[in-house]
Amino acid sequence: MLETTIAEIGPPDPVAMTAARDLQARLTKPAGSLGVLEELSVRLAGLAGVCPPPLPEPAAVAIFAGDHGVHAQRVTPWPQEVTAQMIGNFLAGGAVVNAFARQAGASVTVVDVGVAAPLPFPPADATSADAAPADAASGPTGTAPAPPRLLDANVRRGTRDMTVTAALTRDEARAAVETGIRVAGGLIDAGAGVLLTGDMGIANTTPAAALVAAFTGVDPEAATGRGTGVDDETYRRKVGVVRTALQRHRPDPADPLGVLAAVGGLEHAALAGLILGAAARRVPVLLDGVIAVSAALAAAALAPDAVGAMVAGHRSVEPGATVALRHLGLDPLVDLGLRLGEGAGALLALPVVTGAVRVLHEVATFDAAGVSEK
Amino acid sequence: MLETTIAEIGPPDPVAMTAARDLQARLTKPAGSLGVLEELSVRLAGLAGVCPPPLPEPAAVAIFAGDHGVHAQRVTPWPQEVTAQMIGNFLAGGAVVNAFARQAGASVTVVDVGVAAPLPFPPADATSADAAPADAASGPTGTAPAPPRLLDANVRRGTRDMTVTAALTRDEARAAVETGIRVAGGLIDAGAGVLLTGDMGIANTTPAAALVAAFTGVDPEAATGRGTGVDDETYRRKVGVVRTALQRHRPDPADPLGVLAAVGGLEHAALAGLILGAAARRVPVLLDGVIAVSAALAAAALAPDAVGAMVAGHRSVEPGATVALRHLGLDPLVDLGLRLGEGAGALLALPVVTGAVRVLHEVATFDAAGVSEK
Repeated sequence: MLETTIAEIGPPDPVAMTAARDLQARLTKPAGSLGVLEELSVRLAGLAGVCPPPLPEPAAVAIFAGDHGVHAQRVTPWPQEVTAQMIGNFLAGGAVVNAFARQAGASVTVVDVGVAAPLPFPPADATSADAAPADAASGPTGTAPAPPRLLDANVRRGTRDMTVTAALTRDEARAAVETGIRVAGGLIDAGAGVLLTGDMGIANTTPAAALVAAFTGVDPEAATGRGTGVDDETYRRKVGVVRTALQRHRPDPADPLGVLAAVGGLEHAALAGLILGAAARRVPVLLDGVIAVSAALAAAALAPDAVGAMVAGHRSVEPGATVALRHLGLDPLVDLGLRLGEGAGALLALPVVTGAVRVLHEVATFDAAGVSEK
Repeated sequence: MLETTIAEIGPPDPVAMTAARDLQARLTKPAGSLGVLEELSVRLAGLAGVCPPPLPEPAAVAIFAGDHGVHAQRVTPWPQEVTAQMIGNFLAGGAVVNAFARQAGASVTVVDVGVAAPLPFPPADATSADAAPADAASGPTGTAPAPPRLLDANVRRGTRDMTVTAALTRDEARAAVETGIRVAGGLIDAGAGVLLTGDMGIANTTPAAALVAAFTGVDPEAATGRGTGVDDETYRRKVGVVRTALQRHRPDPADPLGVLAAVGGLEHAALAGLILGAAARRVPVLLDGVIAVSAALAAAALAPDAVGAMVAGHRSVEPGATVALRHLGLDPLVDLGLRLGEGAGALLALPVVTGAVRVLHEVATFDAAGVSEK
């Protein structure tokens, strides 16, 4: 399935991109005055293969949740059970991602791909991740989306401690990636016009830093941040943990599944799959913070053309996020000092993406509006 | 009326701000993880005098339109009639501001405060600017706002050429400011929870640059940009025009009405009034680009506490916008390379403002959600 998906991912359509550039030049505004929105509209036309590209709605947030053996190395002050507790919060609609999703009219799907403890919440569908009900992707922006739902796709009850052994077997990493591909397909089949990456996993900025260092070659210190806000001592320990894991496994960036298995997390692997699944269907995927962009590095290593489907939502304060975005050649749309995860930053950027496409659909040309040109 | 409005503008409420900070610390997210949204929510609580502050909806964009005698100095390649043509485009719903306003569920009110040519479009109310119909502020975000409407509040058919004489008399400047105050009051009376600044006026970045230089003391070159995209020769001429006007009038920043009269525009003066009117009612006003922030300098000079009602929407590529924002102590929410005006940048930032407040209303506390703390 992974190989089939990768084979379906193609380059952008230059004809649609040219058509979008030409249309932008005829709209009633000074040429170039919409800044990054203009180039974004051109990229999305190239992805869709048509100008104007479809409005990116309805929006669907997929929050992949997992736990991490490396938590034992005391890289975070938060107890591991918070991962499961926050899933309860997501399902009850009480988290930040829920508030932002309601505002944006986006659906929220939580996927247990690797939580350590069995979850006490009933999944929407216990048997598979690809059966997305028709209401998983909500109606047009502004209509009330369906309530958050849980998919049970647990590959393993948390990763192994990567300072001791590989976090995952190669088969486990592949299973998580393929879970992400299935979730993407299910959401798109249900009508989603854009996917947004979300994540939950106490300690998951540590494997994210390791993935960034492995795929980009930067030193672990340049890829590691303070996550949810660790103190100096914990930060130094965290950098040391990333360095130890990389020295132990020496992951090869030319073998992306091997990197994910050695130093990744189950939610990171699943997010890489979500991105690949969206790219194969030529649907844009709006990236959240450092977990998402570390997963995007794996997706791009597996299928370089997948970058064409990626839109960087926001610049996380995690330094690894900026390193990864630079490696991918992506500029984030907003920079608000966020370090939350969940998909919150991607949701804040969504109206910019929708607005960029809406201009191509709705703004009058100079000719049609009877406005003089300079 | 101006003096009464200024007298109504007060400082933020420290009790509501402390309550908002305390609430942010109890919500289910790492402390500080929402970055600039947290401090924004605290500022808006201080403005409203209550925690949580009301959601900033419905939103109302007020686009003030005017022409400029300094157009004769060839500071722009666009013909002056485009101001009136674009008003037609706004009323027909074909401009970028209309597309973004529809997406955000915001109403659009166009105010002719100084267009040179009599407009061929019927105003919504020919007699006054303060009679805002009940549908001028639309329903909650996502519902269809009323169609754009035009208010006739023309103070003068374009300013005089500021390189030759004062752009406005002191009475004309005051009349335009009071028009803005009346428009703010009308929109707020009709239910608006946030006002967004918009502007239209060919050549209006030239008086904006002069206002920025006059109020902040920077050299005209540091305050002047390329507007809609002028060539090198026009840019040099534009800097010279700003320098000539400032040398001729030597406007005193301690006399804000005098500055507006000497080197301002009618839409700049009216926007200063809109800001003062919003501040007096303790309603936030979301600033667009360089025209708005040059007007905000005048508003802050008239009433320093008005800054508490201002939210900087975006960073225009115009250098004068950055100079003005620094002077006001405001950081813009988004930076997307826009140089359009109309209110487009403010509309793109609106979901961030709404999201910041929504968090205080909707996110669960650690206690309520049963989530462990670190």
